[in-house]
Amino acid sequence: MSITSIDRHAMGHALGEVQRNTPLVHSITNYVTVNDCANALLAVGASPIMSDEPADVADIQALCASLVVNIGTLNAHTIEGMHVACATAAELGHPIVLDPVGAGASGLRTSTAAALLDRYPVSIVRGNMSEVKALAGGAGTTHGVDVCPDDVVTEQNLEASAAFARQFAESSGAVVAITGPIDIVADASRAYALRNGSPWQGRITGAGCMLSCLTGAFAAVSEDMLVAAMGAVGAMGVAGEEAEGRMKSHDGNATYRRRLIDALCTMDPMSCARGIEHEEVGA
Amino acid sequence: MSITSIDRHAMGHALGEVQRNTPLVHSITNYVTVNDCANALLAVGASPIMSDEPADVADIQALCASLVVNIGTLNAHTIEGMHVACATAAELGHPIVLDPVGAGASGLRTSTAAALLDRYPVSIVRGNMSEVKALAGGAGTTHGVDVCPDDVVTEQNLEASAAFARQFAESSGAVVAITGPIDIVADASRAYALRNGSPWQGRITGAGCMLSCLTGAFAAVSEDMLVAAMGAVGAMGVAGEEAEGRMKSHDGNATYRRRLIDALCTMDPMSCARGIEHEEVGA
Amino acid sequence: MSITSIDRHAMGHALGEVQRNTPLVHSITNYVTVNDCANALLAVGASPIMSDEPADVADIQALCASLVVNIGTLNAHTIEGMHVACATAAELGHPIVLDPVGAGASGLRTSTAAALLDRYPVSIVRGNMSEVKALAGGAGTTHGVDVCPDDVVTEQNLEASAAFARQFAESSGAVVAITGPIDIVADASRAYALRNGSPWQGRITGAGCMLSCLTGAFAAVSEDMLVAAMGAVGAMGVAGEEAEGRMKSHDGNATYRRRLIDALCTMDPMSCARGIEHEEVGA
Repeated sequence: MSITSIDRHAMGHALGEVQRNTPLVHSITNYVTVNDCANALLAVGASPIMSDEPADVADIQALCASLVVNIGTLNAHTIEGMHVACATAAELGHPIVLDPVGAGASGLRTSTAAALLDRYPVSIVRGNMSEVKALAGGAGTTHGVDVCPDDVVTEQNLEASAAFARQFAESSGAVVAITGPIDIVADASRAYALRNGSPWQGRITGAGCMLSCLTGAFAAVSEDMLVAAMGAVGAMGVAGEEAEGRMKSHDGNATYRRRLIDALCTMDPMSCARGIEHEEVGA
Repeated sequence: MSITSIDRHAMGHALGEVQRNTPLVHSITNYVTVNDCANALLAVGASPIMSDEPADVADIQALCASLVVNIGTLNAHTIEGMHVACATAAELGHPIVLDPVGAGASGLRTSTAAALLDRYPVSIVRGNMSEVKALAGGAGTTHGVDVCPDDVVTEQNLEASAAFARQFAESSGAVVAITGPIDIVADASRAYALRNGSPWQGRITGAGCMLSCLTGAFAAVSEDMLVAAMGAVGAMGVAGEEAEGRMKSHDGNATYRRRLIDALCTMDPMSCARGIEHEEVGA
Repeated sequence: MSITSIDRHAMGHALGEVQRNTPLVHSITNYVTVNDCANALLAVGASPIMSDEPADVADIQALCASLVVNIGTLNAHTIEGMHVACATAAELGHPIVLDPVGAGASGLRTSTAAALLDRYPVSIVRGNMSEVKALAGGAGTTHGVDVCPDDVVTEQNLEASAAFARQFAESSGAVVAITGPIDIVADASRAYALRNGSPWQGRITGAGCMLSCLTGAFAAVSEDMLVAAMGAVGAMGVAGEEAEGRMKSHDGNATYRRRLIDALCTMDPMSCARGIEHEEVGA
């Protein structure tokens, strides 16, 4: 059982620290959602830098406070960049967030994510349950870049899912954030369920990628990686609800995308903290 | 002359099938409009996956129901990925949609598009008239990525344009969708003109790319590739009109882009079908 | 001292020429903001083409009226494309705009931008003060892709900044546009301060990249590169103010981005010209 439970104050505080410190976050991410990732980082008060060229990433990472690696549109050249950047971050003691997009969907994605997790001191893994199961070498069969229906976290499998998350955190040495209708964030000893968000987040591309980048921003200003991951997941969930509340007749997913980033931009740490619904599971 | 003419019911039905079946669509597309392509696919109910690395595309294509290849920002490495993906799709019998962006504008684009069309069983080619003429080895001189003014389909050249489209469909073995102020969709024996859309679609980047991706989604759930292409062209045209109708004072092309994707997202198959204006030409 | 001072009429005229002539602008730019760049070019009436493959860029540049090179997400392959494209533009006498994103932040960025500036007849360099100082071999220490706080142009250092800009223009042979809260545009003999814009422009990604692309459009239709650069800087500044004026409660940076492009799209050359606040500095 955990010694101290994570309270909403700590999560709100982390957002405030991002706003106060404007951490530089280096992302190697996919070209599909990269613009949203940059604007989401700016929205929460961080400063984004994207660089994936092996000959560029070490200098860039050295300027930054954290690294986010997202394998959504990996290629042979950017995989090399991911390794160089992770090695630099490791050397400098910067937190690394890994988003294993599509792990389980292709051999290259699974092996690339597994190699990064194996070789570098990844601080936080942020993915859906199928991707995390694929990384754990388990039975997850990723449905493209979306979670496999059988893998969705529900009230029924919540205890088992939390146990799996703690186990994965223990074996990998990373905090894990498994997101979906119910989010689970865990380290080796504690697992939390977070119940914020909106079904609209599944109707846009990039909700997960943006969250991984926010996690990099929170990690850059936090001591405790569990607090960082929960703060980012909580902030995105609260923003997701706020954005849903502003949808009008005839609005669709493009408007939702805009409202989601706007909600991150106008978010107050205190009211964000008040909105987060979380509870410890199992333990 | 055609045996059965395509009715609006069939086109609306195809949109309904996309919404019901959530087909996974694998796109190798340009990095300019890829985010809009992903959100447009999500808007109509499909599930997008982008992957262009040669070592990744076969696994990804195997999970998917169709392939869209768009050469808008091709490079040596992604061209290799296009070939591997097309070979896999061909082997698995998945429909392939080819968008020959800028064919005619550079030797590399023309030869790449021609090689893909030549080697693989492309189901549908979607481009502007200049691009399709360049592919046909004709007189089209592409004006960058836009149609050459001399090539625009008009009421005056409609019969001749339809005849060209049927001929191209016959020689290439693919259904062809030539889009512009008047759209022409044809197979070897039938050509249709569609008259939906908005001049605003020419003021944003990505209207054509999004349409090619939607065509991939419709192809994934359709038996008849002519119905798939017409359904996608019709849906985009109706959404284009809906979006134009929502423009307010001081709105510009960025708002139009948002409204266009929103219109795809909120579109009802029945009302879409009712809005499509099409007629058979020549035959 | 300058013989003729640049008046607002000349700047407004340049925007009108873009709208009348629809110049094709070839951009090699980063994948973070490329969609906004394309839509911004369309907004002002230009026609965008993106191509970075070495085997493609010469043909594409030959069709175009100007070239914009932005090193924001450079890689080994696209750097090669930048050189081929610049060589072609030089041969054809097309204006080249260089945006040295992150010069000073990494060795690769600094050396790539310096090599391009050294080898080709760059018409206009558009960057922030840290980037331009890095290119000048000076003391600028780029804060990631943002200006280093010490380098920001203020009323206090305005004369010195203008003198630096004229000197850089003289030594490089290019007009220079150094943008920030106060913008400075200079050639070897004249420097102007422009005071339009909005703090919101710093809360979105791509404001600088879009401006560099607009500068390419203005350069394509202008004789005088100083007028082209000032016209683009002025138009972006006026649009930035217009967009700020339309922000409502709960709107954030995603809405601002949309409003900024919309403002470029609905901008009238005369009212744009009236809104530009500029003055010659030093001389």
